[in-house]
Amino acid sequence: MTAANLTNDPRLESWIPVAPNGDFPIQNLPLGIFSRAGSAPRIGVAIGDRILDVRAAAEAGLVDVCDRPLLCAPTLNGLFGAGRQTQRILRDRLSALLRAGGDSALREARTDALLVPAGGVTMHLPLDIGDYVDFYSSIEHATNLGKLLRPDSEPLLPNWRWIPIGYHGRSATVVVDGTPIVRPSGQRKPPSAAKPEFAPTAMLDIELEMGFFTGRGNQPGRPIRVAHALEHVAGLVLVNDWSARDIQAWEYQPLGPFLGKSFATTISPWVVTLDALEPFRLEGPRQEPPPLEYLSGAPACTYAIDLAVELQTSQMRAEKAAAFEISRTTFARMYWSVAQQLAHATSNGALTRTGDLFASGTISGPDPGTYGSLIELTWRGERPIELPNGETRTFLQDGDEVTLRGWCERRGARRIGFGAARGRIVPAEA
Amino acid sequence: MTAANLTNDPRLESWIPVAPNGDFPIQNLPLGIFSRAGSAPRIGVAIGDRILDVRAAAEAGLVDVCDRPLLCAPTLNGLFGAGRQTQRILRDRLSALLRAGGDSALREARTDALLVPAGGVTMHLPLDIGDYVDFYSSIEHATNLGKLLRPDSEPLLPNWRWIPIGYHGRSATVVVDGTPIVRPSGQRKPPSAAKPEFAPTAMLDIELEMGFFTGRGNQPGRPIRVAHALEHVAGLVLVNDWSARDIQAWEYQPLGPFLGKSFATTISPWVVTLDALEPFRLEGPRQEPPPLEYLSGAPACTYAIDLAVELQTSQMRAEKAAAFEISRTTFARMYWSVAQQLAHATSNGALTRTGDLFASGTISGPDPGTYGSLIELTWRGERPIELPNGETRTFLQDGDEVTLRGWCERRGARRIGFGAARGRIVPAEA
Repeated sequence: MTAANLTNDPRLESWIPVAPNGDFPIQNLPLGIFSRAGSAPRIGVAIGDRILDVRAAAEAGLVDVCDRPLLCAPTLNGLFGAGRQTQRILRDRLSALLRAGGDSALREARTDALLVPAGGVTMHLPLDIGDYVDFYSSIEHATNLGKLLRPDSEPLLPNWRWIPIGYHGRSATVVVDGTPIVRPSGQRKPPSAAKPEFAPTAMLDIELEMGFFTGRGNQPGRPIRVAHALEHVAGLVLVNDWSARDIQAWEYQPLGPFLGKSFATTISPWVVTLDALEPFRLEGPRQEPPPLEYLSGAPACTYAIDLAVELQTSQMRAEKAAAFEISRTTFARMYWSVAQQLAHATSNGALTRTGDLFASGTISGPDPGTYGSLIELTWRGERPIELPNGETRTFLQDGDEVTLRGWCERRGARRIGFGAARGRIVPAEA
Repeated sequence: MTAANLTNDPRLESWIPVAPNGDFPIQNLPLGIFSRAGSAPRIGVAIGDRILDVRAAAEAGLVDVCDRPLLCAPTLNGLFGAGRQTQRILRDRLSALLRAGGDSALREARTDALLVPAGGVTMHLPLDIGDYVDFYSSIEHATNLGKLLRPDSEPLLPNWRWIPIGYHGRSATVVVDGTPIVRPSGQRKPPSAAKPEFAPTAMLDIELEMGFFTGRGNQPGRPIRVAHALEHVAGLVLVNDWSARDIQAWEYQPLGPFLGKSFATTISPWVVTLDALEPFRLEGPRQEPPPLEYLSGAPACTYAIDLAVELQTSQMRAEKAAAFEISRTTFARMYWSVAQQLAHATSNGALTRTGDLFASGTISGPDPGTYGSLIELTWRGERPIELPNGETRTFLQDGDEVTLRGWCERRGARRIGFGAARGRIVPAEA
């Protein structure tokens, strides 16, 4: 059994209590950036409802397995840039420190300063994000959008089954879980109007996505081959690509989405590494026609991640009603895989740097309850969602809070969770 | 006369020799990042054929007008982030040090270490670029592309006269003047082919553009108003947005350009500040219909910049033939202005950071000799360009070198130049 497999062993238990169905057992060990009042942002590892302060542990001499500056940095860029093997070595060491019957050094240290209650910290973006790319890799989503936006033609465009279609988004507006989302204003023009108007969006939507962060980058002019792509991927997060559909519809021809998307993209704070996800890696759906050679021969690299979208309105909060699940789907059916996306994005030689974020595109399944956006779930507002308290929703209202959740579960493995990516809508600026 | 006007006075002369038609008289004072062998990249100012080492001058106590760390940094982000007023104060001081009859402190110092011959240095990207946006603001270019790509419909789409159309490009692949351009490979599918192929692009093109760098950014959720936009703009550079037309044509529906553009974008190394360009600021063309209120009331902020594209093939280099000018146009006719572009890009509240690059889109005039791309100049290859040595070109061949140049000239002002943005095509990776 390799070291990586040992750290995934479902029989492992931490000496720190972890709820049976918690997101962060010792098999997970996701990395993030946190701070306490009065202290600088630093690397942490989630374990149960605690966070191991990796910088403090390194400074105490407990994690001498890689260069200390990588562990004491305010972002994960340095650590992830060092490559998958460094990530694995760190994972082994953290697992040994945190597991029952492992290395007792951490347990014997002053653990109160090293293990912080997760409830009392501020989470930050885990990396300095260089470029942000958003794909369009769910065949069900692309088909649904085609039906909605181009009702008179074939829903799937001719290039879709050949190319992992994608575009660049705005990296400056990627924000972490919990950041309020200001309703954006913009130009919109209903087909019946003579001219456009500038106003707060009336069609504020979500997009349920997963995203991966690159670890080691490539050299300019040197594509990352699909067979080696996973060695350049550090881990995954939840992504909510907030979208203003009325702004998007009026602006997007011919150069694609711009202000309808660029106001905000929310990610979950904990990067779940590919090593933690290894027990949930599987073959994706059969691709027909077979992809071109540069996209062929990828390792199985779809992941069996269950996903949910929850909505809580301000009235529900006043009534102390729990958030209501409006969609449940899976990442496992995505047509284009992580490895194909990265190989495609660099196939023209484009430079990828550590900390680039590549999102999957909206993840929709075949049935209405499995769609990953409100425009699909409500069929552009024709079929409002009924909430348990009698309210209805087509697009988002001010005060609505959306939470994305993701987790992996299967018999014979411990549950691996992603935490949450939340955002609450606040009114447009006057 | 304000300080800013004094620095633009055409009667000013530097005690450093400047050729009568040189790009860098004392009225220009563009900022860039350079290094010499064995020394770290640092801020410099171009004057004649020399570069004033701003870091060394600051360390010698000659430029004590703003915080020294801003002047000793390896990029211009800190300095530009401090705002236009700081830029103006620095400009005043540099002008005083460099002009005949001004402050003699620099002249009396050991100027050989402070004033470096420009021929012996390496130029770097002037800023760490956060996000890169490319607009589409020339009505002539948008009309030409419409005719070429959608021959059976109205060339200008209905949104074009209402919205400064733009999209996000890849900031990682913005490179400085002189960086070799590797011919990209990618998917392409001629309409007659049954399926796409992956191969080096056969339609490698240029796009002649100008770009502006943001200085002080905005707060998230707070648009930059069009009336104040120029206070957030630090200066302009030349931009060549290299484009692979065959890759772009097959991939761009429905989310816009991606790999057809993301392999490289070349900029000129010297940022010409808005203060230097002030004598060349003018009203842009009349906009009909009148723009919506959030795009109205901008200050005059088109700039009378003459632009040229030169091409030199490897055969021409072997024959020692000079580069041949294939296009001559002007920035002054751009439909959407710098202030409108920045106001629009932040109208949804999107965060803009110091060092974001906003390019204008291809700059084309009304006549064939004024087009800013080969796809327009050769009308998608139908009308090859004839070079003086008998060679012809439709799209670029390996070994071709393209140089963009830009300059401002008018009676009663000193010529202000942008230097060059050059790139030579090297063969595709095997």
